Amino acid sequence: MTRTPQLFRLDASLADETSVSRSVADTFEKVWRLEHPDGIVLRRDLGAAPVPFIDMTAVGAGYVPAADRTPEQRAAVELAETLTDELVSSDAYLFAVPLYNWNNPASVQAWVDRILTAAPLKAGGAEPIAGRHAVVVHSRGGGYGPGTPREGWDHAEPYLRRILEDVWKLDVTMVTAELTLAATVPAMAGLKPLGAASLQAAHTAAEDHARRIAELVAAGDPAVDLTADRAIA
Amino acid sequence: MTRTPQLFRLDASLADETSVSRSVADTFEKVWRLEHPDGIVLRRDLGAAPVPFIDMTAVGAGYVPAADRTPEQRAAVELAETLTDELVSSDAYLFAVPLYNWNNPASVQAWVDRILTAAPLKAGGAEPIAGRHAVVVHSRGGGYGPGTPREGWDHAEPYLRRILEDVWKLDVTMVTAELTLAATVPAMAGLKPLGAASLQAAHTAAEDHARRIAELVAAGDPAVDLTADRAIA
Repeated sequence: MTRTPQLFRLDASLADETSVSRSVADTFEKVWRLEHPDGIVLRRDLGAAPVPFIDMTAVGAGYVPAADRTPEQRAAVELAETLTDELVSSDAYLFAVPLYNWNNPASVQAWVDRILTAAPLKAGGAEPIAGRHAVVVHSRGGGYGPGTPREGWDHAEPYLRRILEDVWKLDVTMVTAELTLAATVPAMAGLKPLGAASLQAAHTAAEDHARRIAELVAAGDPAVDLTADRAIA
Repeated sequence: MTRTPQLFRLDASLADETSVSRSVADTFEKVWRLEHPDGIVLRRDLGAAPVPFIDMTAVGAGYVPAADRTPEQRAAVELAETLTDELVSSDAYLFAVPLYNWNNPASVQAWVDRILTAAPLKAGGAEPIAGRHAVVVHSRGGGYGPGTPREGWDHAEPYLRRILEDVWKLDVTMVTAELTLAATVPAMAGLKPLGAASLQAAHTAAEDHARRIAELVAAGDPAVDLTADRAIA
């Protein structure tokens, strides 16, 4: 390996120390760092600093020749390329995404929208990150399993899989902690043991997958060109 | 009827005169106005002016006693109550929502999130708008019907139905115009006739449903208390 491996970590929780998705992602990151002490962890925190909604400038700027772009168009292209480059330059991925109102946080949608305005990760593009390994840490306040009243109400996971698997062709593993509200909501007190078990299992899975993916990356899987320049531009 | 009927119209397209969802919604609105010349059309345009992403202030402000709120908390509660009141005070609904990157525009998610922080339209709440009639004008650049390669890629409609039907208990009719990109994208030229037919059918359906819902509202369906004050606060 001619360069240190880079993990990209996305956070989207609005909460800080109380965030389950951040806590489980911390577990992943800790194990990853043990495996790659000299590795890079590149972070993008949409909970702390969301990227702006796309607008007509963002949608159209990429079609304007670089020399002819207005300052606003240049800024939009730069943001899209920066976000894209964070993905393209990384060897593995950790997405920590809570379920808000039965969907992904709006900030995740805005982030996807921005990236899809830049050529390299557009649908039907060259799939420059295809085959790389990703873990999605997904936290859900309630229960959404088969047979529960809210089965099918998690609209976040299908969309994340659509983008990460079907569009960007990542190899995705979901690590889900659910019933996270049982710890604090009195009406869910009876579900506390299930919530605690789900959280414990998520931390264990995060450790296991961090070790597995760190080893895969060290072994050169997927076979990416590690001598290539990280930048897309 | 003791007051003039009010139609709430939401737009989410970033485009203006080229927007298909706006154009089909215009058709609905025109017929509605013919049926209720003295009626009110209350508009909220997320494409022109998105509401901000929720943040921890927005999530927590409603739990703070009004007298103890900071200026930021007061502003968050006021925005959520304004958006909620626009729905609660209306007798019928027109949602014009394009498909962006196989989902709702992020601005629609932010709008839902804001409303769900205010008590009246929270999940498990009193369902103050249950039974009222709504049309969703849904525009999609490609084709997503059964048997097409992108069947199942429309993640917007299931989520919109989840919120409008399952949470807010509206009576929802979808009016979908698809293959809207066929008119302008050379690679889709062969689909132009299908796209044109879909658009024409959407305009016709918008007219029909505008007339139908205008008549239902005039006849007092659903049986809402038309003497009640419109405001929630």
